[in-house]
Amino acid sequence: MAKTPETEHPQKAFGWAARDASGSLSPFNFSRRELGSEDVLIKILYCGVCHSDLHAAKNEWGFTNYPIVPGHEIVGLVTKTGSSVQKFQVGDQVGVGVIVGSCKTCDICQQDLENYCPKVISTYNSKDQDGTKTYGGYSDIVVVDQRFVLRFPDNLPADAGAPLLCAGITVYSPMKYYGMTEPGKHLGVAGLGGLGHVAVKLGKAFGLKVTVISTSPKKEVEAIDRLGADSFLLSSDPEKFKAAIGSMDYIIDTIAAVHPLAPLVSLLKINGKLITVGLPDKPLELPIFPLVLGRKLVGGSEIGGMKETQEMLEFCAKHNIAADIELIRMDQINSAMERLAKSDVRYRFVVDVANSLASP
Amino acid sequence: MAKTPETEHPQKAFGWAARDASGSLSPFNFSRRELGSEDVLIKILYCGVCHSDLHAAKNEWGFTNYPIVPGHEIVGLVTKTGSSVQKFQVGDQVGVGVIVGSCKTCDICQQDLENYCPKVISTYNSKDQDGTKTYGGYSDIVVVDQRFVLRFPDNLPADAGAPLLCAGITVYSPMKYYGMTEPGKHLGVAGLGGLGHVAVKLGKAFGLKVTVISTSPKKEVEAIDRLGADSFLLSSDPEKFKAAIGSMDYIIDTIAAVHPLAPLVSLLKINGKLITVGLPDKPLELPIFPLVLGRKLVGGSEIGGMKETQEMLEFCAKHNIAADIELIRMDQINSAMERLAKSDVRYRFVVDVANSLASP
Repeated sequence: MAKTPETEHPQKAFGWAARDASGSLSPFNFSRRELGSEDVLIKILYCGVCHSDLHAAKNEWGFTNYPIVPGHEIVGLVTKTGSSVQKFQVGDQVGVGVIVGSCKTCDICQQDLENYCPKVISTYNSKDQDGTKTYGGYSDIVVVDQRFVLRFPDNLPADAGAPLLCAGITVYSPMKYYGMTEPGKHLGVAGLGGLGHVAVKLGKAFGLKVTVISTSPKKEVEAIDRLGADSFLLSSDPEKFKAAIGSMDYIIDTIAAVHPLAPLVSLLKINGKLITVGLPDKPLELPIFPLVLGRKLVGGSEIGGMKETQEMLEFCAKHNIAADIELIRMDQINSAMERLAKSDVRYRFVVDVANSLASP
Repeated sequence: MAKTPETEHPQKAFGWAARDASGSLSPFNFSRRELGSEDVLIKILYCGVCHSDLHAAKNEWGFTNYPIVPGHEIVGLVTKTGSSVQKFQVGDQVGVGVIVGSCKTCDICQQDLENYCPKVISTYNSKDQDGTKTYGGYSDIVVVDQRFVLRFPDNLPADAGAPLLCAGITVYSPMKYYGMTEPGKHLGVAGLGGLGHVAVKLGKAFGLKVTVISTSPKKEVEAIDRLGADSFLLSSDPEKFKAAIGSMDYIIDTIAAVHPLAPLVSLLKINGKLITVGLPDKPLELPIFPLVLGRKLVGGSEIGGMKETQEMLEFCAKHNIAADIELIRMDQINSAMERLAKSDVRYRFVVDVANSLASP
């Protein structure tokens, strides 16, 4: 008899899964592998709800392999360690982000860029090294190779800090890699959602002047009063937009929908950098003249390596940066997903897993 | 009576000009300004024929102000200097490139990036500081502010070195700025024309592995045997193209026509950089997924500042780099332009100005 998700491994696990492209989530019995020598067993406390979870649950990117247990912004407690694990002890508060494995040996891995390894293993909907499927953080426990487990600083809130494991590193890494951290420089943050609102906070922590660029006028007060942005640019206001042309050193573009790049490029100064971290599913139009005449660049970036993710968590702990969240129960996930699809969340849902995941 | 190009300045000058969008060039009497204290009077020896000259002569970019005397790859001899000029003496061999003025005071100029100054003055078809129009190097003499005059190294050939003043700096500057000079790295050069063939030579001088990417199979032998490229990738060969995916660290894209970026982006490794220096007149389609998933960037660059242009000339002199040219007489310019429009030149026409410009 073919093994089922419930019987393929020895440790019983329980979570919520989507079974088809409706994306509707419901209780799901499955299993986790026995601990290898490098593995850590984690009891999950909180798990953030990333927009990718929604894309994957509904198979919007076309590569979902059902059933799928989403969730890659995991904070939990170590409950057991493999024989070779030195880095963690039972009781440690830890984090698990978007990836749980890579080849560890290629030159990319050796540069601590496991996230770009061709053999990277995602936290869910991915093939694990033993050929079984990975299941994410909408679940009670998870087994993860210690290399992909992060020390979660004590003074970071476990619930509001969870989204840093994806949203945080997604904006932190390009800011570091592309050199967008010079104090006094002007950062534009395009789109004020889960990623954008963390980008505002990181920008301020780096000493930047931060302008939120949004199509939604109602976000102005929040951007400035709640998140600490210096200014707000309504993209549909032609007067204000014109006045802002050539005023920004960097822009982080968190917009996941197809959108024109030319207006954003026009906001950049000479040598300006526009970094896209959203994943529109169609190519965008890139105007070449302003790129050439202003020595501007458009770059991409995807999460970060484990070393840099650890560094980011410590930076956030030091600067008291966490996400602004709405804490939900596991059984509220489907209505939360519906609201997320309408961008009706400020700014990240986090599931209170340990206190709301009904036992099977 | 309104002043004419021939009477607006005291020094008589003679060149070849286009009068309308036919782009056809013919003899033209005009004048040059009296030397200011910072100016240098230059007798023109050679002038390269850049593709921009053709675009401008035919008003293909839509901002040509006729009559126009093209030419911005000028090598000549100093024949007179203004009272404050210390840098040059009569008899010096000098170069003049794409720009002849800027504000000199803005922060961009103070970073030696005069080429990006909002008040930059182009060598032709531009408004000079006194409100008159600038005329380029298809002419007998030129008067240029010393800041925009380059020492032309003695061991660079004056004819074949002329194209370095535009084609050379156009590819040298992005290689330096974007960090594309690490020995052993793999550079792709897309398009093998005036810019591309210099990029191959510079790439080899920096110690890179260089692959020419071209749609023209007949360029393979030349790319390798004559220019020293390490390999050749015919973009229309799907087998070879597939094998080259993910193999390049950098690409310089010199293609001026509208073309797809996705195939070039696919050739890049993780962290790869694609730099466009051509100026297609329509936006290009930019695929976002590979940019994000591979932390790749697409950047632009336009010529270089005066300090860097001088550095480039010295680098080329040291490494015996010049353009491969076809030397023509001034009265051959119209047929040369026709051939240039068909990319029928290996690889740059240079006008032997001093020996072929018939006196008025």
